[in-house]
Amino acid sequence: MLGSKVHIKLFDDYIDNFINDLNDNSVYEPIKYFLKLPSKKVRPILTLISSGLYNEDLKHALPASLSNEVFHNFTLIHDDIMDSSKIRRGKETVHVKWNLNQAILSGDAMQILSYKCLEYYEAGVQKKLIKIFNDTALKVCEGQQLDVEFENQTRIKFSDYLMMIKYKTAVLLGSSLKMGGIINKASENDLELLYDIGINLGLAFQIQDDYLDLFGDKNLIGKKIGGDIIKRKKTVLYHIFKESSTPQNSKIIDEIYDNEEMDDNIKIEKITRLFQESEVNIKTKFLSEEYSSKAITSIKSLSIQNKETENLLEICKNLLSRTH
Amino acid sequence: MLGSKVHIKLFDDYIDNFINDLNDNSVYEPIKYFLKLPSKKVRPILTLISSGLYNEDLKHALPASLSNEVFHNFTLIHDDIMDSSKIRRGKETVHVKWNLNQAILSGDAMQILSYKCLEYYEAGVQKKLIKIFNDTALKVCEGQQLDVEFENQTRIKFSDYLMMIKYKTAVLLGSSLKMGGIINKASENDLELLYDIGINLGLAFQIQDDYLDLFGDKNLIGKKIGGDIIKRKKTVLYHIFKESSTPQNSKIIDEIYDNEEMDDNIKIEKITRLFQESEVNIKTKFLSEEYSSKAITSIKSLSIQNKETENLLEICKNLLSRTH
Repeated sequence: MLGSKVHIKLFDDYIDNFINDLNDNSVYEPIKYFLKLPSKKVRPILTLISSGLYNEDLKHALPASLSNEVFHNFTLIHDDIMDSSKIRRGKETVHVKWNLNQAILSGDAMQILSYKCLEYYEAGVQKKLIKIFNDTALKVCEGQQLDVEFENQTRIKFSDYLMMIKYKTAVLLGSSLKMGGIINKASENDLELLYDIGINLGLAFQIQDDYLDLFGDKNLIGKKIGGDIIKRKKTVLYHIFKESSTPQNSKIIDEIYDNEEMDDNIKIEKITRLFQESEVNIKTKFLSEEYSSKAITSIKSLSIQNKETENLLEICKNLLSRTH
Repeated sequence: MLGSKVHIKLFDDYIDNFINDLNDNSVYEPIKYFLKLPSKKVRPILTLISSGLYNEDLKHALPASLSNEVFHNFTLIHDDIMDSSKIRRGKETVHVKWNLNQAILSGDAMQILSYKCLEYYEAGVQKKLIKIFNDTALKVCEGQQLDVEFENQTRIKFSDYLMMIKYKTAVLLGSSLKMGGIINKASENDLELLYDIGINLGLAFQIQDDYLDLFGDKNLIGKKIGGDIIKRKKTVLYHIFKESSTPQNSKIIDEIYDNEEMDDNIKIEKITRLFQESEVNIKTKFLSEEYSSKAITSIKSLSIQNKETENLLEICKNLLSRTH
């Protein structure tokens, strides 16, 4: 599990108070519902960990940490509309439980609430937080845009694809870590390192996720192997394959991906074989390790080494060794 | 026209630069399109006018003024989805010209951009701007929520209805004026007055708008008299009627409103007669004048009286005398 029990207890109490303090206008009902669903709380925990590098008293980091969680959850509510997803965290999505308009409007209010959390900080710190928050939030939107566009294209430059997952996922991890530094007035050098750690962790995690979907331990993964292929999701594996494949192989994989007649298991088997023949599995694992090790180097370069640096290293280790 | 030619030229040049500076990720395409449509620019002009009370150099007010325009336009893009509106400012709405997902995502990015405009200000000023901006933006969402809910109810307390239009429309005028004061470090007393002026102007305007739709000069109004009735929109007139009507009359108006068989002109005629019999037209006109005169009192109480106070008084006067 990410973060210690102390981190989680602190955050859970804080978010409960936040939810209780929302007034009774029904625009906040879906927000209360969504924030109470079980969540891994990756972003808020990262903010608490990085703040803990510089300051044992984690209370000061709670508003920033909440801001990141609220923003992330807002993006999920709107993404669920765009993806027509019916289930999130085992429960109905907001646009299904309520309706489209409610999910749009409550999502909008939630985005404002994520800024409101930052009101807690004194002016100078707040200005720095708002800057990184704005830039990150815009990149998340740009990443989502690229993701949609790339889904309809069959040949994307791999560097463009990586930029998309960096924007869509990794930058918010980077800013979550950096914000923990900003509120404690960490040095510019540490702030840059914290951001890099988040970016590299985010990329490593996303790449590992795609890898495990097809090459994970099927007894542990808890869902069907190859789910991404069935959903015709163009993953890191797909893009690594395309990048180094001959025009003929490139055509073959798209034909299999788009073949609606083909049995799912045969589809997965054929694509797995294509990937193994061109060592996509090895290349993907290597790429994930490369980003993890960049994160580890940055962690070790931070000006302070204490139990929270150990915590960050532990996260990297768990990431690399996970099999599901 | 609202604001002088100087205000409008300054703002137009500034928004053009802003649009040109957006990068070429296509999430910004609908934003560029929408911000180029002809707009009355009420909110940015109000910010420029209030800033001009304290400082002749209006350049300093442009980022805040843009922030209010961008935020307002973001709400229009999402409102157009919720209302299934096809046309806005004579052109296709974003969700029609592009699609639903694009309108959601570009709207989200636009909301972030409205915060980004405020990065221009030094920390202490920015903190105050962000506070009023957050509170206003949340009220706008709460107002939109109430508006949707009230549409499905036949008996709303008139004070609740007024609160809804205050939240949905007037608070953003209040904050637009107040922000012009904040950036020039106006006194707390002036800031409160500026906010009140915006609220009262907003209420007066909205009430006058509903009044003119049915009792305006049909030769000047440029659209069909009674359009709100045809759209079954529950206006200020409707609510004033309901508030003072007998249960029997209250039932009659709803029967006419909901009668899908009745000819439009007969509908308008019947409702106009009901309104005139219970003096709804006189009461509505009086209410609008009451809010205008509150705004005028506040304008005259400002610590500074110069050509911009004249400008504000002119806006109130035009509001009251307009016949279409």
